[in-house]
Amino acid sequence: MKRRAFVKNTTLATAGFSIIPSIKLMANDDKKVKIASIGVGLRGQAHLDNLLRRNDVDVIAICDIDERMLGMATDIIRKSGKTMPQIFKGDPFAYKKLLELKNIDAVIIATPWEWHTQMIMDSLQAGIKYVGTEVVLGITLDDHWKVVHEAEKQKANVMMLENACYFRDVLAVLNMVRQNVFGEIIHLQAGYQHDLRGVKFNNGVEPYDSGVEFGEKGFSEARWRTNHSVHRNGDLYPTHGVGPVATMIDINRGNRFLSLNSFATKTRGLHEYVVKKGGENHANARVKFKLGDIVTTQLNCANGETILLQHDTNLPRPYSLGYRVQGTKGLWMQVNHSIYIEDKSTKHHEWDDEKTWLEKYDHPLWKRWHNKETDSAAGHGGIDFFVIHGFIEAIKRRVATPLDVYDAAAWSAITPLSETSIELGNETVDFPDFTSGQWMYRKNTFALTDEF
Amino acid sequence: MKRRAFVKNTTLATAGFSIIPSIKLMANDDKKVKIASIGVGLRGQAHLDNLLRRNDVDVIAICDIDERMLGMATDIIRKSGKTMPQIFKGDPFAYKKLLELKNIDAVIIATPWEWHTQMIMDSLQAGIKYVGTEVVLGITLDDHWKVVHEAEKQKANVMMLENACYFRDVLAVLNMVRQNVFGEIIHLQAGYQHDLRGVKFNNGVEPYDSGVEFGEKGFSEARWRTNHSVHRNGDLYPTHGVGPVATMIDINRGNRFLSLNSFATKTRGLHEYVVKKGGENHANARVKFKLGDIVTTQLNCANGETILLQHDTNLPRPYSLGYRVQGTKGLWMQVNHSIYIEDKSTKHHEWDDEKTWLEKYDHPLWKRWHNKETDSAAGHGGIDFFVIHGFIEAIKRRVATPLDVYDAAAWSAITPLSETSIELGNETVDFPDFTSGQWMYRKNTFALTDEF
Repeated sequence: MKRRAFVKNTTLATAGFSIIPSIKLMANDDKKVKIASIGVGLRGQAHLDNLLRRNDVDVIAICDIDERMLGMATDIIRKSGKTMPQIFKGDPFAYKKLLELKNIDAVIIATPWEWHTQMIMDSLQAGIKYVGTEVVLGITLDDHWKVVHEAEKQKANVMMLENACYFRDVLAVLNMVRQNVFGEIIHLQAGYQHDLRGVKFNNGVEPYDSGVEFGEKGFSEARWRTNHSVHRNGDLYPTHGVGPVATMIDINRGNRFLSLNSFATKTRGLHEYVVKKGGENHANARVKFKLGDIVTTQLNCANGETILLQHDTNLPRPYSLGYRVQGTKGLWMQVNHSIYIEDKSTKHHEWDDEKTWLEKYDHPLWKRWHNKETDSAAGHGGIDFFVIHGFIEAIKRRVATPLDVYDAAAWSAITPLSETSIELGNETVDFPDFTSGQWMYRKNTFALTDEF
Repeated sequence: MKRRAFVKNTTLATAGFSIIPSIKLMANDDKKVKIASIGVGLRGQAHLDNLLRRNDVDVIAICDIDERMLGMATDIIRKSGKTMPQIFKGDPFAYKKLLELKNIDAVIIATPWEWHTQMIMDSLQAGIKYVGTEVVLGITLDDHWKVVHEAEKQKANVMMLENACYFRDVLAVLNMVRQNVFGEIIHLQAGYQHDLRGVKFNNGVEPYDSGVEFGEKGFSEARWRTNHSVHRNGDLYPTHGVGPVATMIDINRGNRFLSLNSFATKTRGLHEYVVKKGGENHANARVKFKLGDIVTTQLNCANGETILLQHDTNLPRPYSLGYRVQGTKGLWMQVNHSIYIEDKSTKHHEWDDEKTWLEKYDHPLWKRWHNKETDSAAGHGGIDFFVIHGFIEAIKRRVATPLDVYDAAAWSAITPLSETSIELGNETVDFPDFTSGQWMYRKNTFALTDEF
């Protein structure tokens, strides 16, 4: 078998022609997908909630090192009326015991970023064929290569649970792109523009807007995420932005990222927040944060498009992912909720409200699955339902996940590459081809139907 | 006298402390400013119209090589009731005869881009102390250095007539920046996002949206501007975008551009326009256009800000300069007409309509000078009035122009630097310091009062 032949197979599988013969996924006498959750902090609990709502899933094990988080998770499970899963805890490597369970169909990893690669690698090496991981895939470029190589070796699926790919507006625009409404796509923009100051710092008890502690004195994300702002300067969170636009221009599936360049501003926001909320004598007022307040990244693509990404998490601002999708016939600008299509928009050179367009091109997935249940209960306005749904339905069908390890690696690798670019004085750096040339042959199969 | 000491003098002059002793500007028996206009095409006619409305100006000479444009210009002059100026015409160097006139206080140049440097140089060498030029200052980096050196040598003022610096929203935001409403400025964006296809091509008779000819068969801007899209790939028109944001962060006046990087998309828009309007057999359908449809440029500044500029002129879209001004306390986004200021905006993490803020901080210049006359009659919603007003009032006071040769050189030099960056595979290039270090000492004097 050629090194990457399985890639082709899984693509075919997704298209419905075959199943992967060599993978035994589930015991035949049980149709339910057996899931183990590594990490049941606030994000893991959101996934848990979605999993527990499904009748095609059994959560058979959970793992965490934080007793408070474990307590919250078991409360959720108790309320659901489902069987209490086996609980693994006590030390950071308790998850390795969990991976020794013989009947796991898939794991979902929702731990601090720096744990993802190791946990994915251990899961793959334990023989698990479906690994769902929270963003991002890893920290260094080497992390991303390691996971790609291990997934190939194990003939396993690694899906990064990038919920932003399932936003209703994003999927409607993907639909428009595929129906050539924008013409040939020329330029795309997106980002993660989210005032995280109240997330990066808290009082160690309440997760949001409660204080100026982080690290060991912090709770939830403040416990680990903030350290990345102390030590790293780059686009630390690129996948919400890049994921949706990558699906629109077939990245790793007929197209690829060629090169990348990042610029970073000075660093003011986090320090000023600590001083404002905690006073200039607070110990954290002496911390030197490395992350530039705004990091702006450009990418060249093989088919001639450019992508602009912005990371803006240290300053006061309304939340905005700021998508822009522009082709030879017109463009979508999310920030002003507008679309303009030549010869079709109401007035020459004037914006249409995006609403009419997005409704007209509402994606089949949303048409079929959207209801009060998925919308309000399942997190982030429904997108958490869709990303878990995509993962589980792929497992049930024994086909490739809707987003795969190459998507995960390419999207996540933007972070270390942007760090390198900034470190080298804004040098433009080459983007690795994680598919080793298969991007020329692979097909875009993301969200092609109303199934998952 | 130190090499650049006059710079300091002119700054002082603007602040009202003195006049430049060595410059004899006007005959004492005539208070009117004597202006000669080189180039009276459509843009030159707009300036002419503004000049003729003023009682403090005499237009004493005009020059053009196009008989049709000269006819339109003389019609405007006739209708104004003012004295017909001397007319220079017949060949591309007729302007040199105009420059031999002894009583010129100032020239205004509104010719194709590639003529600006030469005409400015000749004007300066003819002893004219006030030169107003349409954007841009020159084509190559060397052009910009030449003009800077000649202005220094001649102790003369070169003002680029960048009307965008006078937009009502831009000036209100400048006012907010100076009153610290946004806190310390961190990041800025702007651009020139203007569907110019109907300008770059016409039928040789009507200037806009009339055909697919350019060059010798084109009229007005299609006659010359389009050639730049055939032969050059870069941000060809940076000054409307960068000018306003440069005034907000004291570029060349306490701050400076340090480095620049540009990315360009593939080139589709102009060819598709020719085919769509003229058919695939039209001769211009065989032209290979070099300009990427969207060129996105980043700049690092000495004080740690980043600036993002976009040039987007080949695709269908609504007009947008897309300003964004972001500081430690909040930001303005022009594209959705919104402002957010921490602790002051109506709702936490939600946009305010910009309207209330812009009205509250309306700039003294607009408060004083805005009326029906300046608004409707004087071009581009009043800004053409303000840029001419600034130029003329500086001449009357014998002080430095509100924008000077260093502003003009730095803003215009973005074009050749972006071409170099793209040509070198998106390399980040150093930005020259046209002030030779004086940026550390020069003060921002732009639009400080309600005078001009």
